[in-house]
Amino acid sequence: MGSLPTESLSVEEHQQQQVEMDDTSRTERARWLLNSPDPPSIWHELAGSIREAFFPRNKLSSSSRVKQTWRRSAFSFLRGLFPILNWGRNYKASKFKSDLMAGLTLASLSIPQSIGYANLAKLDPQYGLYTSVIPPLIYALMGSSREIAIGPVAVVSMLLSALMQNVQDPAADPVAYRKLVFTVTFFAGVFQSVFGLFRLGFLVDFLSHAAIVGFMAGAAIVIGLQQLKGLLGISHFTNKTDVVSVLGSVFSSLHHSYWYPLNFVLGCSFLIFLLIARFIGRRNKKLFWLPAIAPLLSVILSTLIVYLTKADKHGVKIVKHIKGGLNPSSAHQLQLTGPHLGQTAKIGLISAVVALTEAIAVGRSFASIKGYHLDGNKEMVAMGFMNIVGSLTSCYVATGSFSRTAVNFSAGCQTVVSNIVMAITVLLSLELFTSLLYYTPIAILASIILSALPGLIDINEAINIYKVDKLDFLACIGAFLGVLFASVEIGLLAAVTISFAKILLNAVRPGIELQGRLPRTDTYGDISQFPMAIKTPGILTIRINSALFCFANANFIRERIMRWVTEEQDELEETTKRTIQAVIIDMSNSMNIDTSGILVLEELHKKLASNGIELVMASPRWQVIHKLKSAKLLDRIGKGCVYLSVAEAMEACLTSKFAALSNC
Amino acid sequence: MGSLPTESLSVEEHQQQQVEMDDTSRTERARWLLNSPDPPSIWHELAGSIREAFFPRNKLSSSSRVKQTWRRSAFSFLRGLFPILNWGRNYKASKFKSDLMAGLTLASLSIPQSIGYANLAKLDPQYGLYTSVIPPLIYALMGSSREIAIGPVAVVSMLLSALMQNVQDPAADPVAYRKLVFTVTFFAGVFQSVFGLFRLGFLVDFLSHAAIVGFMAGAAIVIGLQQLKGLLGISHFTNKTDVVSVLGSVFSSLHHSYWYPLNFVLGCSFLIFLLIARFIGRRNKKLFWLPAIAPLLSVILSTLIVYLTKADKHGVKIVKHIKGGLNPSSAHQLQLTGPHLGQTAKIGLISAVVALTEAIAVGRSFASIKGYHLDGNKEMVAMGFMNIVGSLTSCYVATGSFSRTAVNFSAGCQTVVSNIVMAITVLLSLELFTSLLYYTPIAILASIILSALPGLIDINEAINIYKVDKLDFLACIGAFLGVLFASVEIGLLAAVTISFAKILLNAVRPGIELQGRLPRTDTYGDISQFPMAIKTPGILTIRINSALFCFANANFIRERIMRWVTEEQDELEETTKRTIQAVIIDMSNSMNIDTSGILVLEELHKKLASNGIELVMASPRWQVIHKLKSAKLLDRIGKGCVYLSVAEAMEACLTSKFAALSNC
Repeated sequence: MGSLPTESLSVEEHQQQQVEMDDTSRTERARWLLNSPDPPSIWHELAGSIREAFFPRNKLSSSSRVKQTWRRSAFSFLRGLFPILNWGRNYKASKFKSDLMAGLTLASLSIPQSIGYANLAKLDPQYGLYTSVIPPLIYALMGSSREIAIGPVAVVSMLLSALMQNVQDPAADPVAYRKLVFTVTFFAGVFQSVFGLFRLGFLVDFLSHAAIVGFMAGAAIVIGLQQLKGLLGISHFTNKTDVVSVLGSVFSSLHHSYWYPLNFVLGCSFLIFLLIARFIGRRNKKLFWLPAIAPLLSVILSTLIVYLTKADKHGVKIVKHIKGGLNPSSAHQLQLTGPHLGQTAKIGLISAVVALTEAIAVGRSFASIKGYHLDGNKEMVAMGFMNIVGSLTSCYVATGSFSRTAVNFSAGCQTVVSNIVMAITVLLSLELFTSLLYYTPIAILASIILSALPGLIDINEAINIYKVDKLDFLACIGAFLGVLFASVEIGLLAAVTISFAKILLNAVRPGIELQGRLPRTDTYGDISQFPMAIKTPGILTIRINSALFCFANANFIRERIMRWVTEEQDELEETTKRTIQAVIIDMSNSMNIDTSGILVLEELHKKLASNGIELVMASPRWQVIHKLKSAKLLDRIGKGCVYLSVAEAMEACLTSKFAALSNC
Repeated sequence: MGSLPTESLSVEEHQQQQVEMDDTSRTERARWLLNSPDPPSIWHELAGSIREAFFPRNKLSSSSRVKQTWRRSAFSFLRGLFPILNWGRNYKASKFKSDLMAGLTLASLSIPQSIGYANLAKLDPQYGLYTSVIPPLIYALMGSSREIAIGPVAVVSMLLSALMQNVQDPAADPVAYRKLVFTVTFFAGVFQSVFGLFRLGFLVDFLSHAAIVGFMAGAAIVIGLQQLKGLLGISHFTNKTDVVSVLGSVFSSLHHSYWYPLNFVLGCSFLIFLLIARFIGRRNKKLFWLPAIAPLLSVILSTLIVYLTKADKHGVKIVKHIKGGLNPSSAHQLQLTGPHLGQTAKIGLISAVVALTEAIAVGRSFASIKGYHLDGNKEMVAMGFMNIVGSLTSCYVATGSFSRTAVNFSAGCQTVVSNIVMAITVLLSLELFTSLLYYTPIAILASIILSALPGLIDINEAINIYKVDKLDFLACIGAFLGVLFASVEIGLLAAVTISFAKILLNAVRPGIELQGRLPRTDTYGDISQFPMAIKTPGILTIRINSALFCFANANFIRERIMRWVTEEQDELEETTKRTIQAVIIDMSNSMNIDTSGILVLEELHKKLASNGIELVMASPRWQVIHKLKSAKLLDRIGKGCVYLSVAEAMEACLTSKFAALSNC
């Protein structure tokens, strides 16, 4: 390619020399491949990833020339653990003004939502409020997101009660149930910290985007259906969460008149009010505070109405006594021994993953709006620590809330101080105002939860997923239907299974394509994708599109290649009476090969050789070439069969004289 | 590249034109990518694979111009189903002579092995012999392997008894046990035929080569340990198969003297004889018949010894009565209803897969020696049908035997007729000679089984696997230890799990590499693999080595790319005070992308763009480009960011004027 003609030679001589030079440089380049250094061994890679897990960015710190004193490095460690030390020094009064307003708006939404979600988690209302005090404070010290609003959320509350009631019925023994909830919270915190510390953040990725969309929508509907209990004032309600059981339970209650219409009237009126407020807030961004304070307004108004009309005497269910005061310690309530340990740990793991998924999705989307980076592993440590401390102070699993984070952002929060303001406000109301909530109707809590649900259902995204990727949509719909018709666990399991089945399917049935040269280039492309691609008669170019050439697909690949060879042979014989000279296998897509793959390559070589066809490999990867060498396959089939690219392999095959002389 | 200089232009003008032409042709070539036809949709692919499953090779038959009459096509269908119709017409007397000799040799090995394996399967001896009659006859009609020897094999016999005794204790109720074994055989046959008919042969591939090596070695040791019962004449033996239980049982029997030394002396003497015969047969290929007839010889000799010395009165356990005669029907014994249906079906599935794995491995290795092709799916149909018929005629699961196939091959068999000869010989001995086997000591059967086991343990291959692929070796050792210390099921499960974990690990943590240009080529390679690769300052070239750019790795890929960009930025600023202009992502290895991957690409584009860095994609694949189009991502980030190859993307980035004018 880069060889200039020498003038003193005749054209023929020159061509001859050109061919020889090409050939020499081709073999030389093939030798780059064959003699490339050994790739890092599996032990080396393992050690590397462990080192990276425990001493991240080691490389950067060693390259910086500044000698750090131990005090400086201790401070930098502390700053890593508590980001507040970084931004706290530059914190200004102007920022505080914004954060104060955002925090108060947040609190006005947080108080009614917390009570509602505690109800959803089958705990007394004060536990929801407790969860809005300690976790946000801890997160403010350790977290790095500036917008996220920490506290109880709908999906995790529902998940907890749905999973926990198989272990302990909350109606039968609320104290035992609460103890188990704290234990689950503790485990969730431990799992989250471990994920963060050991850089296992990728475990959260196992819930794909599509699966989350489906799961959230299913969970929203399930949560909504659960609210029918409060909205209709039904006394006997099913413990199951699937649509069929819940609707059956509702209809049987309606049929037997075990419900109180006044609840429904009250709940629905305020639901309509909340939805209108939400609608106005969406249409006019300046009125964002309207949907934010509407819930608190509804609580105050409805409580007044019930108090004045004594509606509680006519069947309107009310919250009754809420225990006020600071979070009590719950350290002695953790059940770290006993028969339920395994189950609580399992539920802790599930809640940890779901809570992290929501928090990281929320944190990342707002961080990307403001253009800063969020370290997933650090976030996990912060979340984990906040839940561990929470479990010791009567809180249940807290995470970042979609709806409240959006309110916080719209209210113009600058830093995580808005969370501190919110926590202090909730704390003050716990101290002072809980007795005022005695007459708050439960139907209002139900309508507050219901009004927050539409935000969890993203139909546009589901349509988008359907358009882009059918198998992704299958995971989405699997999670949705699983949550809806079976249980939360089954839904999650369905989503993860379908997502991974997709990966396995891809490995078991990889693409394998016939290639042709694209005109005026050295590039080869799939002949079905590029109709202009040119096939070279007598030489088949086949690309294996599998990252692993392994047991799961080796036989498939062999049979497909042999079938193409037979078909091409038949066609060639019919038209030109010639035979196939060579099969070039483009291995550039196969990152690795295993013993089954090597066996198949050897078999292919033997079969093709017995028909007088050469097997040529183009651009095998580092690991592949290393394994072919260690399996001594290259010694058996000849090192001349390996070329750096398809184009070079093709050139080598076309200069058939040289090919005949080569080792193949 | 292919543009010739026009003489009338000045050098500068020419260069200018050249640049413009290059640029035009580059965008034109990028348009090939962007305007490539839609790839086949998932429905289309599904329909295609169903069509291929039911009407294979449709394409070929339609292209052949010969109009087939219905009689001709019916005959071709029959010939497909019964390959004997093909080769039977050319069968000659000379071939029959070879087959007769091979068949007789085979029978002499088959009779004692069948009795031994029936013992291993906890069935009466005649059932092993029955299994050596009907299945080989059916296979002879339908199978296409010429060397394979059909009948009971050690691993499947052990598997059956190990799995079945959890369902039904053979000692407590042998008749019920036998009925369930026939039912399992029926299910195994049905599964095998279904695999073949629906072209699900790839299910057998789920047991990787490495896993089979480990499983076979573990099974051989477990089988060997089971033989201690017969060899020592122990009466009370454990039902478990793991090493610890079996050795515990043996030592407690030895300790309490619940064993008869005469059995051991007899068994060991003949075991030594068998092993010497085996050794001689291996050293001198002409004496291959010695190990083949040694078992029959041992049976005859030991039976005579026991009969003459009346050793059975002194504790030597003997076979006693073997029911002779033709295979009785067992159609009425199948338990296709009842409480054990699910379990028998499951055991049927496991046995079907293990039996097929062995048979196909055996068949393929001998077919490749003789250089003919074996259609895996057709073989499965034949095996399935032979087992279905077997289950109706008192046979248990039959398959191709490693050791007997080797004997058959060495004895010079030409066609599957040797199986017919063998079956008829076994049938005759069932009719005539079973009463002669009354005094055959059980210890001899144990030593015959023991002498066949070393062939199942392939230490060289295990070492080879360790050298080539550590993770493969993990699957191998997992299967081995699982079978040895837990149970057959656990061993198989461990092997399949480890094998698939490898695939998933590869998807979750794909390789991602910094590339540089290889000198004097347009090819780009990993800078760690090719030390001579040249980096272009200011332009990062990154290749994603993942077949699926999906939820499982999208975040990992984003963080790795962002880290490299930051590191390169820091380095560039330190040395040249310049900044990165562009990041070229080589997507040629990603066959597909899902919604999570698209989200990450969009995020990357936004983040890089906010730092003034272009994101350029080189050679995205068919499905990827299609999905980027359907997600409208290309509209948002500009279609000018896509190039046919890394080299073209690099050229485009380097001609920065044009890059500034382009859409990116």
